[in-house]
Amino acid sequence: MPFADATSGRFSYDGLDRIMHEKARLSVLTSLVAHPKGVAFPDLKRLCGLTDGNLSRHLAVLQEAGLVSLAKGFESNRSQTICRLTSTGRGRFLAYLGVLEQVVRDAADAAAEAEHQPPAMLAGNRT
Amino acid sequence: MPFADATSGRFSYDGLDRIMHEKARLSVLTSLVAHPKGVAFPDLKRLCGLTDGNLSRHLAVLQEAGLVSLAKGFESNRSQTICRLTSTGRGRFLAYLGVLEQVVRDAADAAAEAEHQPPAMLAGNRT
Repeated sequence: MPFADATSGRFSYDGLDRIMHEKARLSVLTSLVAHPKGVAFPDLKRLCGLTDGNLSRHLAVLQEAGLVSLAKGFESNRSQTICRLTSTGRGRFLAYLGVLEQVVRDAADAAAEAEHQPPAMLAGNRT
Repeated sequence: MPFADATSGRFSYDGLDRIMHEKARLSVLTSLVAHPKGVAFPDLKRLCGLTDGNLSRHLAVLQEAGLVSLAKGFESNRSQTICRLTSTGRGRFLAYLGVLEQVVRDAADAAAEAEHQPPAMLAGNRT
C-alpha cells in the first residue's frame, strides 16, 4: 500500500537552488544579508571561516549567478574588495530561506510524529 | 573597522554535514524520518521526485555513511527494497536539522534587522 503522502515529489524541494544550497555559499549569503552596506573581503573570510582561495571561488560563482556584486572600496585608506548582495540576490536568498524553513518544519514535524507512533507500529513492517 | 560579529567562523556552520546537506539526500532523509517502519524504494522515489538511478546512487552514499539501512521486504507478495533510517542516521539527521534551523533563524533575523536600518546607513559604506 503506497503512503498517502507519496505524491510525486512531496519532499523534492525544488526550491533548494543548487547555487545557494552549498555550505560555504550559504555562509557567504547569510553574512551578506546581515550587512547591506557590504562586507570587506577579509571580514567575510573570517565570518565564514574560509580561506582566501575558497572564498574567491565561491564569490565568483555567486557573482556569475548575479547574486553578489564585488566593488573596490576603501577602509582606513586601504583599497579592498567590498562584497554585497544584489537586490536579485537578496530576493532569491529570501525565497531559498523560505524553502529551507519548510524543510526544517517538515522534517521536525515528521520526526516528532514518528516518535509518537506506538512501538508495535514502529516494528510493524519488518518481514 | 571590522564587524563586531566578525569572529572567526561566526557563520561557518560546520554542523552542515556534507553528506546530509545535499538536496536529494535531504529529501530522502526527510522522507525516511517520517516513516520509521521504512519506505519501499518505489514510494521513496515518488516522495523525492528522483529517478531509479539517482535514488540508488544517493541511497548508496547514505548507506555507506551508516545513516540508512536497506533490506528486502515483501509487499503484496512482491519482494522489494525497504529503506530505513538507522538509529545513528536518525540522531545525526536531527542534529543536522538543529543546525539548519539555526541557519534559517540567523539569516531571517539578519535580513529583518538589515531591513530596519535607516537608508543613510544602507548607502553609508559606498566610496
